Amino acid sequence: MIFRQFFDNDSSTYTYLVASRVGAEALIIDPVLEKTDIYLDLLKELNLKLVKVIDTHLHADHISGMRKLHNVTNCATLMGEQTKADVVSIRLKDNEKVKIEKIVLTAVYTPGHTDDSYSFLMENKVFTGDTLLIKGTGRTDFQNGNPYDQYNSLFEKLLKLPDETLIYPAHDYKGNTVSTIGEEKKFNPRLQVKSANEYAEIMNNLNLSDPKLMDIAIPANKKGVV
Amino acid sequence: MIFRQFFDNDSSTYTYLVASRVGAEALIIDPVLEKTDIYLDLLKELNLKLVKVIDTHLHADHISGMRKLHNVTNCATLMGEQTKADVVSIRLKDNEKVKIEKIVLTAVYTPGHTDDSYSFLMENKVFTGDTLLIKGTGRTDFQNGNPYDQYNSLFEKLLKLPDETLIYPAHDYKGNTVSTIGEEKKFNPRLQVKSANEYAEIMNNLNLSDPKLMDIAIPANKKGVV
Repeated sequence: MIFRQFFDNDSSTYTYLVASRVGAEALIIDPVLEKTDIYLDLLKELNLKLVKVIDTHLHADHISGMRKLHNVTNCATLMGEQTKADVVSIRLKDNEKVKIEKIVLTAVYTPGHTDDSYSFLMENKVFTGDTLLIKGTGRTDFQNGNPYDQYNSLFEKLLKLPDETLIYPAHDYKGNTVSTIGEEKKFNPRLQVKSANEYAEIMNNLNLSDPKLMDIAIPANKKGVV
Repeated sequence: MIFRQFFDNDSSTYTYLVASRVGAEALIIDPVLEKTDIYLDLLKELNLKLVKVIDTHLHADHISGMRKLHNVTNCATLMGEQTKADVVSIRLKDNEKVKIEKIVLTAVYTPGHTDDSYSFLMENKVFTGDTLLIKGTGRTDFQNGNPYDQYNSLFEKLLKLPDETLIYPAHDYKGNTVSTIGEEKKFNPRLQVKSANEYAEIMNNLNLSDPKLMDIAIPANKKGVV
């Protein structure tokens, strides 16, 4: 199994590349436009055929590399069916399987950060996008975000995974690279709430400024302009 | 097995935490002073007992968290016997074993970046410090660095490991988190040389500026002042 995590310093984004072996089909999750040459170099070096690229949701803080990777490799581009992005060739439903050679991921609809947010389960790993972060959760104050939906996504879906499931988020701002469901359940400060109302109270009072690239990234990621 | 990689954005340093299971003894490699609270939080959450901290070499680009971790946890502090740091409780020799509960690492003397540079082999992983980086190698122009020594460390030691060995370096500046010996052997531009002289020629002409923290980090890491 080939499993690679990449970090984009500018947006603190994690990108993931998965393949069963050298020479096999590959899949990339949440690519960053400025880093696509690094992914393409690695694909070439490992003789991998990129067949699918997933964005976990419409990103507001960086321009996705999905469209460029499609242009170079002709890979399929996947997002949830709720997305407003019009550059998507496969629109996933909740619970749909995403297959590449010898690897299966399950799409899990986890709205809340945005209304098109999905997580992806792959054996003992879950790619949580901006839904569940390490010791945090994704903001819910734009792009049809909703803290009540996110509460359900977290408590009814992600936190019901086995405790030892490894969490690979789309971002981390403190230098963590991975966590587990068990750790987040116990120690993520936002998950210590007793009700959806209490969670919404926290999320509605974060008073965060907009991501600096938001006005560029959202239109670009909708239209796939690169 | 618990295996965690941490990233320090300011110095682009990777730090590693290793333990056999929740509640067991733990070891940390190349901690960064400013990030020690993150490691200490995780140790507490996973109920780990930090017993050993290793610096792969005397760092010139960040202040090590070794001394602070020692002060808080009373862990042993390990470096190679050649080091000029005087805050080290165990001075390792080439090929010496480093043991914690159910985990054994082998210290491999790999001078070249500095004269106190070690790599650490742990099953199918090797922590390469600044000796072997992903598509690069550590500079050899200060702290008794020597490109001929580094050539030997690379070609006679690290590159003789099995191709599938995972490389975990002390730094990456482009967002990679891991590579393999096989990939670096084939694609690392500095490893495509035909002789030690050719390698030295490359390394002696890098014309790099000094690390910005060098005048602070080297004395601090020698004396363990935090």
